[in-house]
Parts: sequence; C-alpha cells; structure tokens
Amino acid sequence: MDTVNHRLPLPYTLCIIACFFLGPLENAISAERTTYIVHMDKSFKPESSTTHKHWYSSIVDSLNGDTHSSFLAGRSLTTTPSLLYTYDDAVHGFSASLSLEELENLKKSPGFVSAYSDKTATVDTTHTTDFLSLNPSTGLWPASNYGEDIIVGVVDSGVWPESESFKGHGMTAKIPSKWKGTCEEGQEFNASLCNLKLIGARYFNKGVIAANPNTTLTMNSARDTGGHGTHTSSTVAGNYVDDVSFFGYAEGTARGVAPRSRVAVYKVLWDEGRYASDVLAGIDQAIADGVDVISISIGFDNVPLYEDPIAVASFAAMEKGVVLSSSAGNMGPELGTLHNGIPWVLTVAAGTMDRSFAGTLTLGNGLTLVGFTLFPAKAIVIDSPLVHNKTFSACNSSRLLSEASPESIVICDETWPVRDQIRQVTAARLAGAIFISNSTRVGYFTCPGAVISPRDAYKVIKYVKGSENPTVSIKFQETFLGTKPAPLAAMYTSRGPSPSYPNILKPDIMAPGDLVLAAYVPSNAKGVIGTNVFLSSDYVLLSGTSMSCPHASGVAALLKSAHPDWSPAAIRSAMMTTANPLDNTQNPIRDYDLEFASPLAIGSGQIDPNRALDPGLIYDATPQDYVNLLSSLNFTRNQILAITRSEAYNLSSPSSDLNYPSFIALYDNQTTTSRVQKFERVVTNVGDGAAKYKVSATAPEGSEVTVIPETLVFLNKYEKQSYSLSIKYGWDSRGRASFGAIVWVEEDGNHTVRSPIVVSPVI
Amino acid sequence: MDTVNHRLPLPYTLCIIACFFLGPLENAISAERTTYIVHMDKSFKPESSTTHKHWYSSIVDSLNGDTHSSFLAGRSLTTTPSLLYTYDDAVHGFSASLSLEELENLKKSPGFVSAYSDKTATVDTTHTTDFLSLNPSTGLWPASNYGEDIIVGVVDSGVWPESESFKGHGMTAKIPSKWKGTCEEGQEFNASLCNLKLIGARYFNKGVIAANPNTTLTMNSARDTGGHGTHTSSTVAGNYVDDVSFFGYAEGTARGVAPRSRVAVYKVLWDEGRYASDVLAGIDQAIADGVDVISISIGFDNVPLYEDPIAVASFAAMEKGVVLSSSAGNMGPELGTLHNGIPWVLTVAAGTMDRSFAGTLTLGNGLTLVGFTLFPAKAIVIDSPLVHNKTFSACNSSRLLSEASPESIVICDETWPVRDQIRQVTAARLAGAIFISNSTRVGYFTCPGAVISPRDAYKVIKYVKGSENPTVSIKFQETFLGTKPAPLAAMYTSRGPSPSYPNILKPDIMAPGDLVLAAYVPSNAKGVIGTNVFLSSDYVLLSGTSMSCPHASGVAALLKSAHPDWSPAAIRSAMMTTANPLDNTQNPIRDYDLEFASPLAIGSGQIDPNRALDPGLIYDATPQDYVNLLSSLNFTRNQILAITRSEAYNLSSPSSDLNYPSFIALYDNQTTTSRVQKFERVVTNVGDGAAKYKVSATAPEGSEVTVIPETLVFLNKYEKQSYSLSIKYGWDSRGRASFGAIVWVEEDGNHTVRSPIVVSPVI
Repeated sequence: MDTVNHRLPLPYTLCIIACFFLGPLENAISAERTTYIVHMDKSFKPESSTTHKHWYSSIVDSLNGDTHSSFLAGRSLTTTPSLLYTYDDAVHGFSASLSLEELENLKKSPGFVSAYSDKTATVDTTHTTDFLSLNPSTGLWPASNYGEDIIVGVVDSGVWPESESFKGHGMTAKIPSKWKGTCEEGQEFNASLCNLKLIGARYFNKGVIAANPNTTLTMNSARDTGGHGTHTSSTVAGNYVDDVSFFGYAEGTARGVAPRSRVAVYKVLWDEGRYASDVLAGIDQAIADGVDVISISIGFDNVPLYEDPIAVASFAAMEKGVVLSSSAGNMGPELGTLHNGIPWVLTVAAGTMDRSFAGTLTLGNGLTLVGFTLFPAKAIVIDSPLVHNKTFSACNSSRLLSEASPESIVICDETWPVRDQIRQVTAARLAGAIFISNSTRVGYFTCPGAVISPRDAYKVIKYVKGSENPTVSIKFQETFLGTKPAPLAAMYTSRGPSPSYPNILKPDIMAPGDLVLAAYVPSNAKGVIGTNVFLSSDYVLLSGTSMSCPHASGVAALLKSAHPDWSPAAIRSAMMTTANPLDNTQNPIRDYDLEFASPLAIGSGQIDPNRALDPGLIYDATPQDYVNLLSSLNFTRNQILAITRSEAYNLSSPSSDLNYPSFIALYDNQTTTSRVQKFERVVTNVGDGAAKYKVSATAPEGSEVTVIPETLVFLNKYEKQSYSLSIKYGWDSRGRASFGAIVWVEEDGNHTVRSPIVVSPVI
Repeated sequence: MDTVNHRLPLPYTLCIIACFFLGPLENAISAERTTYIVHMDKSFKPESSTTHKHWYSSIVDSLNGDTHSSFLAGRSLTTTPSLLYTYDDAVHGFSASLSLEELENLKKSPGFVSAYSDKTATVDTTHTTDFLSLNPSTGLWPASNYGEDIIVGVVDSGVWPESESFKGHGMTAKIPSKWKGTCEEGQEFNASLCNLKLIGARYFNKGVIAANPNTTLTMNSARDTGGHGTHTSSTVAGNYVDDVSFFGYAEGTARGVAPRSRVAVYKVLWDEGRYASDVLAGIDQAIADGVDVISISIGFDNVPLYEDPIAVASFAAMEKGVVLSSSAGNMGPELGTLHNGIPWVLTVAAGTMDRSFAGTLTLGNGLTLVGFTLFPAKAIVIDSPLVHNKTFSACNSSRLLSEASPESIVICDETWPVRDQIRQVTAARLAGAIFISNSTRVGYFTCPGAVISPRDAYKVIKYVKGSENPTVSIKFQETFLGTKPAPLAAMYTSRGPSPSYPNILKPDIMAPGDLVLAAYVPSNAKGVIGTNVFLSSDYVLLSGTSMSCPHASGVAALLKSAHPDWSPAAIRSAMMTTANPLDNTQNPIRDYDLEFASPLAIGSGQIDPNRALDPGLIYDATPQDYVNLLSSLNFTRNQILAITRSEAYNLSSPSSDLNYPSFIALYDNQTTTSRVQKFERVVTNVGDGAAKYKVSATAPEGSEVTVIPETLVFLNKYEKQSYSLSIKYGWDSRGRASFGAIVWVEEDGNHTVRSPIVVSPVI
C-alpha cells in the first residue's frame, strides 16, 4: 500500500518485497489460466437459466477448453475453468479463471460484452473534524444528526473489529431497514464482532487465491492485518474515542467525520495481493447490501474506463443513488498521474492540516528552536552535550559515530539523506541527533532526535563553535495547532488531468490526508525504537489520498443524511462549489512548494462541510448524461455496455459537455493557435426560494472567459437555469497549466457557487 | 534514597556515588568547622535578648574561637562560627558551623542543653485507595469530606509543582485560617506556582551547604529534582488526575489518600546530601506554619532518641496535636533494622498490593503463561522464534547473544542474575528474552521480555525441545488486580524491635508501599529502552516504606478531619487497633517468604481506614506520659530536655509502661528462665454510648497471657477503663520471635479492638 510517509523499514517493506517477488513466480506457475473479468448482456440470459448465477455458471462449465491435466514444477493445475464471482449489482457478468482457449470460446457465447484480465490495485492512505469546522452547535453535524441512518461501505483491507472506534456506544439500536448485509464469519472473526456501529463485514478472496494458488492467506476473513482499512473506516465513521494519540503526538478524541453513521467493511485487499476481481466483488456486494456511500481508497492506474473496476462498478452505484468517493492517488507532483478520474465518482486529493509535530530544542545559551520529530516516546534529553565536527557530522557511519561519547547529541550535516543518518545514529546507540533538512519526510525516528531547517542549523552550529561545553535539551511529543499556511496540497497527491478521461477536471476536491490520526491494527509497528523494539499503537498517523478520501466520504454521508433526495452528482456538486480555495492566511491555497496550487492538484479547493450543506445551486447529472458522455468517446458498444450494463440507454446523443461544476480546456503542445471552447451548464436552485445570482469570473492567465447570461434569476426552489461559458485560450510554451474560476454570487444572499477553470496541456 | 526497586543504573546511581566520593573530600577541606545541632534551655534567655534568634545569634557571635584565617588546598575557610538555623517550634536551639574549640566554649554558655554533629538521613514510595476500600459512598472519605480543611506538611525533597496532582481543581477557595506558611521563591520556583492544593513550599539548604561549601546546589528551591518528595506528597494528598499510568501499567485515576487536603512541602533532601540540621529546620517550620499532619519518609539510623532530629522535632509536633507519620525504613528483612521507632510517632511498614504487572506469553502450541514485566512500551512480539540452547541461554555475554538471529526471543537460564542478563540481551539488541526467576526484583526492563517462574520455564523449554519452529508472542502493559495473597510484608520493610527504644512494639502498622504509582518529576528516567533511550513519565511506580508512610499520613489526615479533637496518640491508636491482621484470603498476613508475618514486620497489620474512623476504644497518651517513659531511661536531664524543651515536665514518675495499643516482651539470649511482664492499659470509650467489651486472647507460642478484668463495661462515651495484661514467657533457643494478640470484642456491637503481642529476642 502506498501510504506514503513513515514507512517501516523492516517487516512491512519485507512483505511488499515478498509480494513483488512472489508475483512473477506464481504467474509463471499458473500461466495457463488467468483470472478474467467478463461483462455480459443480461438480456441474452436464456429463460432456462433461473438466475444470472446459473447462466454464468453454465457458460463457464461449457467452455472446458483444456481437457488435459498439465504439470509444471511438479504441481497439478486446475483442469477445468472455474467461476470466481458472479456480479449483478455493480456489473453484469462474472470473473473466472480461464485459459486463452477458453477465453476465445467465451467470446463466442451469446450476451458476451467484454473481458479483460484481472489487475492489481494501487491503494492510497484525526484534529481533522476541527480543521474542517465541523461542530456540534451549527452546520452539517447537527443538520445531519451526525450521519445517523447512513450506511457507509468501506471497500478496503477489512477492519480490526476490536478497535474502540468500532464500538457501538451511543448508536441507536435501529439499523436502517434497507440494510441487507451480514457479518461474515472467517478466520479470527465471528459474527458477534459486529454491532450497532460495525454492522457488516465481508471478505472477497477468490481473485487473490486464483492468482496465488499455492499461497495460504495470512488472515482469511474480514479482519484487517495491514491496517489500511481500519484507518480509512474509522476516518469515515469511527465512533468517539477519548484520549488517543500516536505515541503522545496528536493527542485528543478520535472520531470519524460521520460519527453516527454505520460502517460495513468489504475486505478486498490482501497481504498477498490486490485484485480487480475482488474489488469488483466487494463493490457489487456493497451495492446489493444497501449502503448509501462507498468509500474506496484504492485505484487502478493506466486502465481505460471500461476496464477500470471502480469506473465500471461505480456506474451502477451512481444509478442507485449511492455516492462513491475515491482517492486520487499518491503519484504526484507530476501532472497526469491521477487515478479514479472517473466522471461519475468523487475524486479526492490530499492536503495538509494546520497541525505540526515538534521537538523543541533549547540550547545551552537559552536559544529555543522548533524542530520536527515523531520519536515515539517521551525521551529525556536534558542539557546533553551537543557535538558538531568533521568526524561525526556526516552521520554516514555508525562505526565513526560510535566513537562519540554515548550521551552526545550529534548534529548531522545536510550531506546525506536524513533517513540514512537516522539509521546510522541508531546503530551507534547515541543519545540522539539533530538532522538538517527542509523536509519532514524522513522515515521512522528510531533514535531520539529532531529535524531542523538549514536556516536554524546555522544558529545551532554557530552556538556550538562559540561555546566551550555546548548543550541541548529536546522536548518530545509536542503537537502544535495553528500552523500556517494550511492546508497545502501534499506533494504526493496525484495530479490531473485524468488519463482515463481528461475532459473533466480532476481531482474534484481536496481533503485532509497528511498525518491523519485514525485507528489501526495493534499488531503492526508504526513506531520503532532502536533496531529491535517495534511498538504497537491502536491509533497511528498515516498520510496519503487514502486518508483524504474517507474524509470526503464522511462528508458525503452527512450530506446524504441531510438531503436524502440528492443524487450523487448533486452531493458532489454541493461539495465542489462550496469548497474553499483559500488557506488559513486567506490567500489562495498553495502547493507543497509554496507556489499557488492548481485545480489539477486540489480540484475546487479544500472541502468545507458546513457550506456544502447549503450550496444555493447545484449542477446535477443523470445516468443518461453520463451515457451521452460515454457515447461521445471512441468506445465500442460493448465497451460502453460493460459500464452501463443496459441496452435501455440512448447512445445517440453523444456529448462530451457534462453538466459538471468545473471547467477544463486542454491544449495540445503542437497547437500554437488560440482556440475557443464552449461549455453549457444547467444549475438547479436548491436555496429556500426565489434568488438572483450574478457571475464573477477570473480568467486563467492568457485567456478570456465569457459567461452568458451574467445574471440568473430563480423564482422557485428546484427551478433550473442555463448558462454558457466560453473560454478563448492559447498555449503555454513551457507546457504549464493556468487557472481561474467563476463564482455565481447571490444578490442579498449568502450563497456563492464557485467553479474552477483550468487551461491545461494534454498529458 | 532507598526506594528499593527498579533503580536506574546510570545517572541516578552515578549521583549517589558522586555524593559518597565528594563527602570525605569535602570533610577533609572543611574539617575545621562542622555543623552541630544545639539544644538550649529557653528559660535561660536573658531579658536583653528580645527574641530567641537574637539570643542564639549573640551566643554564636561570642564563641569566635578561631581568630586566624586558615588555608587548605589554597582555599580560604570561614574564620568565624556561623549560625545556620534557629529552631523554636520543634526544638529549642539552633544549628551552627563550629570548630571544636568553639563547641567547647558553647558548652559553657548558660542554657546549653546538648549538642551533636549534623547527620545524614536515610530516605525511604495508586489502586491503593481501592485496595484500602476507601470509597465515596461510606466510611472515612465521606465522613472526613476527603480530608478537607486539613493541611499536610511533607518534609522531603520538595515538589514538582507543575504536576497535575498538585493542581487546585475542585479545592475550596478557603485555605484554613490557621495556615501561616508561604510559597517561597527560589530557582525555577516562583510564588505563583502555589495554589489551593499546594498551599506552601519552602526549602532548607543551610546544612547541605555547610557540609559541601564548594558545591553549587543543582536546584536551589523547593523544586524537586529527585522525585521522591513529589511521589510522597501526591500519595498523601494529590488531587484527582485521570488516565495516568507508568508506561501503560497501573492505568487509572491517580489520587492521594486525602484528595481534598492541602499540601505544604518542606524541601530538606538535596541531590547534594541530606542533613539532620535541614530536616530539623523543615519540621520546625512546618509546625510553626500550622500543619495538621507531617509526613516524613526519612529516617536516621543508629542514633539515640535525643540525637534523632525526627524524634526530637516530633515531640513538639505531638504536643501541639500534630500527627507525625514516618517510614520504618528499607533495611529488612533482618530484625532490629528499623528507624523512626519513636514512641510518639507513627511508624509505618510497607506491604504489597493485590496488583501485578504482567506480560502474557503465548507459545506456538497455544500454551499461555503469565510472566512479570514492566517493559516500558507496547512492544510487538508476535510469533517470534523462541531460542533455548547452550550458546545463548546463559545470557551472560552480549557477544555470544549477538550471534542469535536478531528477531529471536532467547530463553535465559536461571544461572545468572536476571538484572545482568537483561543488560546482555539489551546490548545484543535481540528482539527480547524470557528470564527465569522466582523474584520480580530484576531492575529495569531495557529490552522486551518477561520473567517466568522455574516451574513455568520447564513447560516452555519442553515445548522448545519438542518443536521444529518454536515461537512465542508476548503481550505487554498488562495490569491484573486480585492477586492473592495480598498484602504481603515487603521483603525490604525494616523490622523491629526498634534499636532506639525496643520496649514499644514497632512498626505500628503496615500500608501499601510496593510498586505504588504516584506523581514524579518528568526529568528523571524510570523507564529505559536499550542503552540510550531514557524515558520520562509524570507518574511512576516506586517501592519502599517511603511510599507506605504517606498512605498512613493520608489516613491520619482523614481521621484528623473527622475527629478534630483526637490527639496524635488517639489517631494512631484508632489506626492500630482496627488494622487488619488478615490478607485477602482471610488468612493471617504473610511475609515476603510466605511465612506468617510477625508484628515486628507489619505492626498491628494492614491499615484499614474505614474501620479506623470508628475504633470503639482508644489508647490515649499525653505528653507527660511520654516524659514518664523518657524518665525511665538512662538519659541525662539534658538529653531529655533536648527532646522536651521544657523544664515544666515532671521527671519524677518514670514508667516504661506507656499506654500503647500493642505489647512487646523482650528476652535476652542468655536468660533461659521464664519471665513475667505486666502491662497496665487505659482505654477510652469513643463509641456512641454505653458498651460492654470482652477480651479474647491468643498467646504467643510458649507463652501464657492473662488479662484482668476480662470484661470492660462503659456507661458513657469518653469513659475510661483500665485493665492489666500479664505475659509469662520463655526464650526461643533459635532466637525467634513469637506472636499473638488480644482483641476486645464489643458485645452486641461492631467494634473489635485488637492489639498484637510479641515475644522477641533483644537485638
């Protein structure tokens, strides 16, 4: 999993390496049969088949291509094709383990739409509710009753059911009647582990087993072993838990964004691998079970929409009014690195918070400096001798460092990566070190120490040179709030345009994803002291869009509770048009490098839950609108059918101009002449009655933006009005994106409805 | 300080060694003048001296023996005698730095009583209130309003004023008007640090400075650096603090025994030394300031009563109705090792609690064993390889151990001290170890591990031998309640008879002293990981009579609040006669070795606060009673006057038979014939009215006990009745003590009034 910060060097990385090494080996052994995801047209189901399962099963049975048993490395392989899952809610079709010959036979079956081989998923990673201004007195929390009666399905690595975040305290006894799910038993998981908070738990392992036929799953149940699913689930809708912290940092009360919503987990990520067939099965089941929101911090890179299990399954979710919120990925900061850039889902970028974790240094001369540290214990460093000299301060040799007096705090120069220096200082068993770097992405603090900036380091080194007995004290476990500017776009958050469909601006929105505290599995170490002491914590800090996604999912749950009649598009629109483009200094949100952040990094801006409750206007979209978009693409009928699953849609009104609350105009690096792109939009008044809006536009640099009309007058609630936006834009010789926005401002009212505009090179 | 468990090997021990080494050196340099404590008869004060200070000062000025300046090692020494403290409440007299010649001059001064050279003190360390059955609904807590309006003076190493235990939350705004103390400013201590809980703080450093003239005090104020005073003060009367623990062990709410009493601290123990002159000054000031109870976890070994600053100062306290509660010392288990065996103070022994700190081991075969650990972090040891072989399992060589695979858990045989084995395993940086021992007194757990019994070890080794890949998981930070039997007498608790006065049975009572959680100074490490990571905790576990004493002091504060008119002797009697001689298995309390514990170890038994509230009968004693006892000793008039400070007492009624609620008969190893000893006692009815008591006696083995009369009838409250107890006893050829008890049992009533009887060899 690409939780991007503070990765444990030892057991965790070992596991990942093992998985990568195992992969090709297993592929070689089981090369004869591969898992395929197969889309079928249900209208072809013969009457003789009572159910779709029966139909799919008889198809697979009939294939039977390889009649000979075959041996490789002495092991017998399955000699008949096998059905893994049948899908009916997210997808019409099934997954099956097939040989190439069987696949060819299958393609001749009536009703066959498409088939593609299984793929492996990429996965992405609490003051957050405070930072998002959620509060008990006004706004979205009380309006939604904290998300009561909403069920959030989390498709991820399962759950640690004993976590305090999944206890049922304070939950009403009445689970919504729409709920059709179950608490599936499995290894170290019995049904009694579910309760009024954790109402369902299922696991989907057929894809992973098919791909790794000789592997025993470490935990064959919905129990989480990696911790990813426990973290994301508790971030969406974890219950209130007092006095939690990450080894003394980020202390406080943990709570999900929708603390009264119910959680149902669908385990599809395994220590042994992450397969599209399992992900599809999980989403399919979540829809069938009756969830309201699906949170999925997983993505598939470099796949067309019609082969992207999340794109495919989320279409069905959208049709049923289920909001699917997904992570943008952690492949930033390069442009065009985003996944889940799917027109009918919410795509969430990750930003920082106004919180920092500090070690305060006090020098012998009284000078105080604030460094960064997450050393996982309250170490005592008081008036320790401070050392800076040529022998030690490269900090690249534990042998040399061992010559320093063991009670020393060594200053490590900015000549080697801090990550490596920490390792050497740890091996030398020094009392600690001060590292010089502008980055806080330094891995695990396995020895007492802190990172200071080169600017501060100058002062420290000057003090050491001028002092006979220089000393330093370091205070650990400090958490400071109010850091400015915040949020920043995280460096790693994947950037648009979306490779799978660049003509809609993605990501949609940014939410807190950096150093988020949430529940975890106690058996995984996220704190290490020395080389041999691995520490358990029930709550840990993780970073990534995997962590920002469930924040947006939680807000979607709250909005769904407050506005049960709103479509997924309406809920997304409410979040996007009310998002905050400014940081806590009231300047435009900046990127990790302190340049102003582009909507290709942050979408419409930082999610603002309380404002999303009452957006004034919304940009809605129906399933047919998305079909019109699909029809405009260079897709075959069957590629579209894989997504839509139904012949009932009209494919004859192609339009790439979806009614989306943001705008993107693309230029080709070859096109030096200026172009004009026109967008048509329809907004629905969801304010309390008559309203008049005037537009205010800020054109991207080098562009002209025209909005017609400039005023929209609504006489009634739910009334719709149209406008068009034209942008005349050129190209940037350096291939940069430029950006602006339009804002519909209500006259004598509180509503402002903002849409970003981006002019971007085609990636 | 002899807090006896879990002593930090490095900085703390170093300090103690440094003090010992410094001592002789400094003595050599300043040999010309020594600090003397001087007792004076105030009736000799000339009218020309307006105050006692003026008088003492003019005496010291007049001595002026050494008129020449002298040099030693190039340093100039003070050339005139100097006055350190004048005392007026605890003692009539002063302390001064004098040469031998000046001392001789002083002895000729009118009013001179006695003088002796300054001495250094020995110092002696929460579920405890639960274990003592204190509860909000009935008994002593509600009856005393949790000790409101009582001021406890703690004479110790000062206080860490920022500790949560000394915050003023919930304390009434009205500090009792009798309070005359102050919050003395000093190094890192300003007056604003006092509040409604910590109402006073003073420090007394003249003795330590006089003895170490060239040393700079590390903390020249009432701020605690060692942690001892912070721990004892918070144990007596710390405020409620939620969610504290010792690195995850003993988790819960900390509170003092008298959580609503006020605390005034008197710092007399210094990192640089502990001197009688300072201790005396602290007690003297506490009495003058108006405290109700003095808690002093300090003792002076091998001094006669008239030169024991605690004996001397506590006499004045007793006269003024101030209860002084003191620690018995940590020199057990040998007999006759006790200090503070002073007839007019409460002498407190230390026992264990029904709480244990565990690491649960789960072997690969499913077998589960409970070991002991205090490893100060939640280490992850899951299915780690378990190793037992000749190369490693002596665990006496880190070099050999380094050859084991680093993820191993090594079983260390019972061939070397666990303390040393932990050091070797830590140096080898193994994942952990299992140590075999019947003792839990193993020092710091600096590597993950647990101690198991030889009996359990047999099962573990058998499993390892029979298994191809033996593994173990260890769960840390476990706290179990309900341990049986409890309490036990702690091995270290000092035993009677009292060397300074063996004819009264000491100690008086036992209170919890083993592994007590209380507040601490965050700058001292009581947890260490590896060799270089020293951990801070605001609450720590300490063991010793230093910890049991403040429990008794807290109970005394509660009793004083509930019965403001009771004398110190009455309060002590109430605690002693209601103490519980049984453990939680309803058998007699056992000693550390599981033999039945003698009253020479536990006094009257385990303190029982709720029963002490309503003792039925009390054994009272007046100051004159103690003077009669002093008169019976082979003391000079001036030795007695040093204690009593007043000529007004009648010295003509000597009696060694103090009206004490316990009995001790001594035999000389030479005396083989049997003896008879007779005791006269007077009991006061403090029950609610008429009452009839019958005696029930259990004679010590080989003795006969006769009580006359066997029935006591009281018609009114406060009525007194007398009885006599005779014991005919022999000697034990092996020099052992034997013990029994009498119990006055109220007919048709709830009161039982118990007194232990001991027949002991003279030590």
